Amino acid sequence: MRLRKKPWAVDLVQAHPESVLDRPDPSKQIDWSQRFSDFSRPLAIEIGSGKGRFIASLAEQHPEMNFVAVELQITAAGIILRSKLEKNLTNLQILCADAVNLDAFFPPHQAEVLYLNFSDPWPKTRHEKRRLTYQTFLEKYQTILTSGGVVEFKTDNAGLFAYSLQSMNNYGVYFDFVSVDLHHEAAKVLAANVETEYEHKFAVQGNPIYALHARFRVK
Amino acid sequence: MRLRKKPWAVDLVQAHPESVLDRPDPSKQIDWSQRFSDFSRPLAIEIGSGKGRFIASLAEQHPEMNFVAVELQITAAGIILRSKLEKNLTNLQILCADAVNLDAFFPPHQAEVLYLNFSDPWPKTRHEKRRLTYQTFLEKYQTILTSGGVVEFKTDNAGLFAYSLQSMNNYGVYFDFVSVDLHHEAAKVLAANVETEYEHKFAVQGNPIYALHARFRVK
Ligand SMILES: C[S@@+](CC[C@H](N)C(=O)[O-])C[C@H]1O[C@@H](n2cnc3c(N)ncnc32)[C@H](O)[C@@H]1O
Ligand SMILES: C[S@@+](CC[C@H](N)C(=O)[O-])C[C@H]1O[C@@H](n2cnc3c(N)ncnc32)[C@H](O)[C@@H]1O
Repeated sequence: MRLRKKPWAVDLVQAHPESVLDRPDPSKQIDWSQRFSDFSRPLAIEIGSGKGRFIASLAEQHPEMNFVAVELQITAAGIILRSKLEKNLTNLQILCADAVNLDAFFPPHQAEVLYLNFSDPWPKTRHEKRRLTYQTFLEKYQTILTSGGVVEFKTDNAGLFAYSLQSMNNYGVYFDFVSVDLHHEAAKVLAANVETEYEHKFAVQGNPIYALHARFRVK
Repeated sequence: MRLRKKPWAVDLVQAHPESVLDRPDPSKQIDWSQRFSDFSRPLAIEIGSGKGRFIASLAEQHPEMNFVAVELQITAAGIILRSKLEKNLTNLQILCADAVNLDAFFPPHQAEVLYLNFSDPWPKTRHEKRRLTYQTFLEKYQTILTSGGVVEFKTDNAGLFAYSLQSMNNYGVYFDFVSVDLHHEAAKVLAANVETEYEHKFAVQGNPIYALHARFRVK
């Protein structure tokens, strides 16, 4: 998803440095305790939040947790920010940055959950390294997750899902949950599912939604 | 698939003890070197062959290998036997038995490949132990496979596939290949695929076919 640059979004981001970290310098540590009222609460991070429907819903449902939306595009960050301000989500921070620097932005072993929703598929083999489930990304996730922390991944892309199953399994993670048809799982699973924008769009078209929850084995 | 008992099939099986082992006693070793012209050739085993379309095709394509079709139902065994006799497949043996005794029927670390095609899904949780990718079956597969040997699994059943991914991952196997839409993979993958009866039926209906190739890590 490449969004057209919206000037209002850029202006909004620049007016709210307390809510959005706009392309911070990866060589400088971020002081998250200054950005959340209580940084000791469980932390969840989403990589590639897009317009933020998923992470804003979660932040609303779970005031006892902290959330960070990591998103490359400033226009998307501005749209997430608008939701945050409208709903007064003090437990949601926005990090406008490339996930490739994730381990520089977060302290080690702090996050409980890391969400990857409908990540860009990068289908060409020569772009494998850009896929958010490529081995070098898994290493970063392992570094920032607590022991027992989970990666929760959803996609409609068959190629990316198969790739990710193989990449994660071969990395040595433990699968807690797998579905190749999430929207036809038992009621309990459906009730716990929070839809993303992409998910809604693809599910309406009748495409299967794939899901994987994985835990790094304790080293 | 429960086949109606066909008397001709039972008679045929009974007339060909050199080709079919009919419910052998698991406490007695099978002398495979008596049943194949050269038992030192690479061995492939299919569990639950049904009418045997897949294993008979493979045996025809690969005269340099040995094949065993393991099938519970005597009528199905008779149908496989008929193909074997028609095509004169001297490299195919039929074992009419329950795969639960696999490790009693085969010597350790002899098989190169173990095929599971469209295995019965046993969707109820209380029947989990009957699924051919349940942990106790994986232990048997590991025992009879050579180090580096692979399990090649195909199914159209979303529940069984998700279960099997999780079960195999949690057991600690290495994934060589995963597909959640085998019939829309690249030409190279399609060309190497040998269809089973069930696969043909479901693919014609437009259902996705799932596939997993897994290797046990060397102990
Ligand atoms: C296909 S969209 C999905 C959006 C949303 N998660 C959903 O499910 O509706 C992928 C998003 O990830 C963002 N993205 C891609 N690569 C990224 C990276 N390396 N770091 C941060 N964000 C990234 C893109 O800008 C885009 O907004
Ligand atoms: C659904 S059919 C699939 C047949 C064939 N593989 C195909 O793809 O067309 C499953 C077959 O496995 C056999 N089977 C099920 N459980 C078995 C077991 N424990 N041992 C041996 N065969 C079994 C059944 O009798 C049946 O013929």
